Amino acid sequence: MFEAKDIREKAKLVRKWCMVSTTEAGSGHPTSCLSAADLTTVLFDRYFTYDLKQPLNIYNDRFVLSKGHAAPLLYTLFGMAGAYPLEDIKSLRKLGSKFEGHPTPRFEYAEAATGSLGQGLSVGAGLALLGKREGLPFKTFVLTGDGELAEGQVWEAANFAAHEKLDNLVAILDINRLAQSQETMFGHHIDEYVNRFRAFDFEVIAIDGHNYEEIDHALQLATSNTNGKPYAIVAKTEKGKGVSFIENKDGWHGKALKKEELDKALAELAPINDNLRFELKKPAKVQLTEKIKGPASVDLSFEKDKEYATREVFGEALVKLAAGNKNIYAIDGDVMNSTFTEDLKKAYPEHFVEGYIAEQNMVSVAAGLSRLGKIPFVATFAAFLTRAADQIRMARVSEANIKFIGSHVGVSIGEDGPSQMGLEDISLFGTVPGTIVLQPCDAISTAALLPKMVEHNGFAYMRTLRSKTPLLYKKEDRFEIGGSSILRQSANDLLTVAATGITVFEALKAADELQKENISIRVVDIYSIHPIDKDTLVKCLQETQQKIIITVEDHFEHGGMGDFALSALASTQGQVVKMAVTKISQSGTKDELLNDAGINASHIVKRVKELMQNKNKKM
Amino acid sequence: MFEAKDIREKAKLVRKWCMVSTTEAGSGHPTSCLSAADLTTVLFDRYFTYDLKQPLNIYNDRFVLSKGHAAPLLYTLFGMAGAYPLEDIKSLRKLGSKFEGHPTPRFEYAEAATGSLGQGLSVGAGLALLGKREGLPFKTFVLTGDGELAEGQVWEAANFAAHEKLDNLVAILDINRLAQSQETMFGHHIDEYVNRFRAFDFEVIAIDGHNYEEIDHALQLATSNTNGKPYAIVAKTEKGKGVSFIENKDGWHGKALKKEELDKALAELAPINDNLRFELKKPAKVQLTEKIKGPASVDLSFEKDKEYATREVFGEALVKLAAGNKNIYAIDGDVMNSTFTEDLKKAYPEHFVEGYIAEQNMVSVAAGLSRLGKIPFVATFAAFLTRAADQIRMARVSEANIKFIGSHVGVSIGEDGPSQMGLEDISLFGTVPGTIVLQPCDAISTAALLPKMVEHNGFAYMRTLRSKTPLLYKKEDRFEIGGSSILRQSANDLLTVAATGITVFEALKAADELQKENISIRVVDIYSIHPIDKDTLVKCLQETQQKIIITVEDHFEHGGMGDFALSALASTQGQVVKMAVTKISQSGTKDELLNDAGINASHIVKRVKELMQNKNKKM
Repeated sequence: MFEAKDIREKAKLVRKWCMVSTTEAGSGHPTSCLSAADLTTVLFDRYFTYDLKQPLNIYNDRFVLSKGHAAPLLYTLFGMAGAYPLEDIKSLRKLGSKFEGHPTPRFEYAEAATGSLGQGLSVGAGLALLGKREGLPFKTFVLTGDGELAEGQVWEAANFAAHEKLDNLVAILDINRLAQSQETMFGHHIDEYVNRFRAFDFEVIAIDGHNYEEIDHALQLATSNTNGKPYAIVAKTEKGKGVSFIENKDGWHGKALKKEELDKALAELAPINDNLRFELKKPAKVQLTEKIKGPASVDLSFEKDKEYATREVFGEALVKLAAGNKNIYAIDGDVMNSTFTEDLKKAYPEHFVEGYIAEQNMVSVAAGLSRLGKIPFVATFAAFLTRAADQIRMARVSEANIKFIGSHVGVSIGEDGPSQMGLEDISLFGTVPGTIVLQPCDAISTAALLPKMVEHNGFAYMRTLRSKTPLLYKKEDRFEIGGSSILRQSANDLLTVAATGITVFEALKAADELQKENISIRVVDIYSIHPIDKDTLVKCLQETQQKIIITVEDHFEHGGMGDFALSALASTQGQVVKMAVTKISQSGTKDELLNDAGINASHIVKRVKELMQNKNKKM
Repeated sequence: MFEAKDIREKAKLVRKWCMVSTTEAGSGHPTSCLSAADLTTVLFDRYFTYDLKQPLNIYNDRFVLSKGHAAPLLYTLFGMAGAYPLEDIKSLRKLGSKFEGHPTPRFEYAEAATGSLGQGLSVGAGLALLGKREGLPFKTFVLTGDGELAEGQVWEAANFAAHEKLDNLVAILDINRLAQSQETMFGHHIDEYVNRFRAFDFEVIAIDGHNYEEIDHALQLATSNTNGKPYAIVAKTEKGKGVSFIENKDGWHGKALKKEELDKALAELAPINDNLRFELKKPAKVQLTEKIKGPASVDLSFEKDKEYATREVFGEALVKLAAGNKNIYAIDGDVMNSTFTEDLKKAYPEHFVEGYIAEQNMVSVAAGLSRLGKIPFVATFAAFLTRAADQIRMARVSEANIKFIGSHVGVSIGEDGPSQMGLEDISLFGTVPGTIVLQPCDAISTAALLPKMVEHNGFAYMRTLRSKTPLLYKKEDRFEIGGSSILRQSANDLLTVAATGITVFEALKAADELQKENISIRVVDIYSIHPIDKDTLVKCLQETQQKIIITVEDHFEHGGMGDFALSALASTQGQVVKMAVTKISQSGTKDELLNDAGINASHIVKRVKELMQNKNKKM
């Protein structure tokens, strides 16, 4: 039975703890919690189905707090559900506490780390998509603020959710009018939101977000909706609702109440019944996503004298991986015929997700898939992965297990010009702590490294090449994360050229050129950029005459492979000389542009000779 | 007089050159040009007002090609307008040609580099905003594809344009149904687009994009519109229109016609009158944005014993800069009270732009402002600048003159937790070629460096701190891009600690600690991270006993200041030891988190002692 009075009492207790915890912390966003307290109290009290003992039970409903600054509300809701004593929340924002300023995986009930706004609807869409694909009955609720609806990603997510007919997804929009620095673009004109979500093919209802009957009615409709449309509950609310002196007032964003203000606020709410709790509905079953290891390798054969583009090999290998591991998904950004995720679409359409041209949503959807144990591959042009740099950052904070594939790297893509060239991607992924960065240069190493990416639990990134390259390796060769491969060596090598991807072939050509003049150089294929094979590089320094390593890469000079080499060798005697792209490139043929960028065989030859002369001069 | 027959003949010539140029290049996107040939022929023939001799005349209309892959269409249109012989376009996609695969500034009529989709409407909004702010009569036309409307940035731009009442902005949507890999989300259901733009408060008209009367009517309405709403012309078109065997066909995205296919296509179009040209209307006046240098310094006074947050100083200095240079603008992402751009809003509201929570649009709007000679400051939390990494990348290809300010950097922000910490920003901006990266640690150096950023023509980035710091410098001290400042030195320094931003104070504390044990270290403030002061660092290596530089920064370890130091010193005898953040941080106090990250004074002391012992062991 629905009793507004009971709900009101519970909402008062929710309000209390949002304020108590932030006052205790001395910072936080209590007013942003209070505007959504009524909405979420009804949700948790009457609709939310959840097994507190098993946050990853795939029969649980999902609650994504997109407005991450309302973290104290999230913590209070689960505390009120009995997950831990409410008193625990007093450790909010303190070192080591799972109750962080914005939700992170330290809080086991957070579906994703949030706090960079406008990402929650995409994460929710990823979760809801899984429900649809796997025929699971759970609902996904996403609570968003209004300020964050200005983020384009929200509309990418809205398009995606409607296109995928996610009628198991409920967006609850907390339209409290006030953003951080001023009123939002639309203030309390909630029609602006209603019209937008309706135009984006959502089922929409507008309500007073503090009227319990209206909230309950909306949630009833939303949770029983089966018309193929995602649901948006547009709730007109007031920031700081329930406490007169902060309610709907300017200047109260991100401010905790002082002790005496808190006392005044609690007095307004009194009497508060501290014993009230939510009794969550239990899901019918308990089941986790089955953990699947491997496959340890993919069985692909390549013809000795044929050339292959590593991006094509990725496509073929992905099919083999998915054959051996049903948790593997791929998500594409309308370039499946360039990245070759189309192979997976053909073989296992149920594991392929078309994200269209919306890279931000693509990454956060993948974070949603990962949350429930899937292993998503996110693939597009390397240049366009930069579009999702913030989502990548946040997915890493979420500890998502995503595999990224960036194709069309470097100036070597040729005629399309600088807008299509991935030249920042090693830097982007290399900066994210603990991310594996790989760049195989031939078909065999590509096929061998992809299963290693899957084996690694966490972020892994592979650069793939647009152009075809000859086979350098044999089927029996072994490749490891953190490994490298010495391709040329002799007892009297002058120095070492460490190359990666397309420049490996330039380094080999340079070695051949130099050999004609009886200059031997060592050539190493740095297929694992991070971690980089320090031991081999140290050995190369020690075993070559000049104790020099030239790094050559089709990437901008800062943040690339050369910097990983420099860092690894910082305490070793010897010198690292970086060759990389130092300017904005242009249109031209692959060979012209490698030359224009100063990273082709002839430039390597030139640099080797310069270094030789310098050294001789010094001697 | 409007004669459809004349227009048709001109459109045939446009079509011819889109195909001839791409066939000559052997690659490109002719079908994506053909769908928009009719729309743009009417535009250029009858509406576009432009002075070919002065692309930067602020009375010119503006044409932004958001669908950058239709570059041959852009080149043909300006060729047909008489800017150069059409034959020149045969150099399309060739090394050194200004006719690149996607538009770049080599082509002087391109308003921005495009090719990463969904950015053109924002650039156009920036241009149109300037028209509004400065009372200029020009119109801005943006041609978008349909696939790119899935990019969230388009909807950020739409919100922004409507909110700013940009009725001088006309979006022409080329709805040709087919994207790269397959049909778009909505195919030819143009109501989906009509509804969306209408909901986003645009004036909208839907037309047949191959019917000249309808196109003309729509452009007439759009260009005479004064109702405060931006205009969207939703044009149903066919990819490859005009040539039967490619028209509306799958599999023709991004493919040039073979020679024999081209002959067949031209035969279909025959007869073609090669003498037809557009006669552009000339703008009434010629005027460029006045170039203003400086001001060379800002006059701010600080009290000796007070502490200041560098972000606050930025706000104050910005007002002084704008007082001396009317080209300065600032654009904010709903954090003006955190970044302190609110100071500019108060002092010069006409130079302040509120971008709300939509960082991608913010950066591309700035690129638009920069195109016409303005100097925009883009300011938000450093963490949220990553949201616009792709727009930053493209604005750099556009050679935009943007100043970026990222506040709340590093773990030192404290309780808000990892989602709000800028720890990738040095890497992000450092990777972009030619970008200045600065991080002053006190009020005086901040105020001194800001005019230098303005003086520098091109990208410059400054990190600002959340917390207050004491004054380290005196008013008469000088600061240069590429400079540094030695804060502690003696004749018998053991080694050098090079710090930046908040860690400068940790390094000084460490030096004081060590001095108690009679260990002298040199401390350098690396306020200019890129370029880094190599000469000073080399000198430090030479003058210290251990020839070691420890770099300490509140940034992730890869791609940060340490890597700039390593690169600069790669050929110098000595060792660089990096101290930086190596893991995802958490909530806590500033001091707890600096300690947890291993970059505070006590960790510096520890590291110095370890290095001392290592060296002693080796001796």
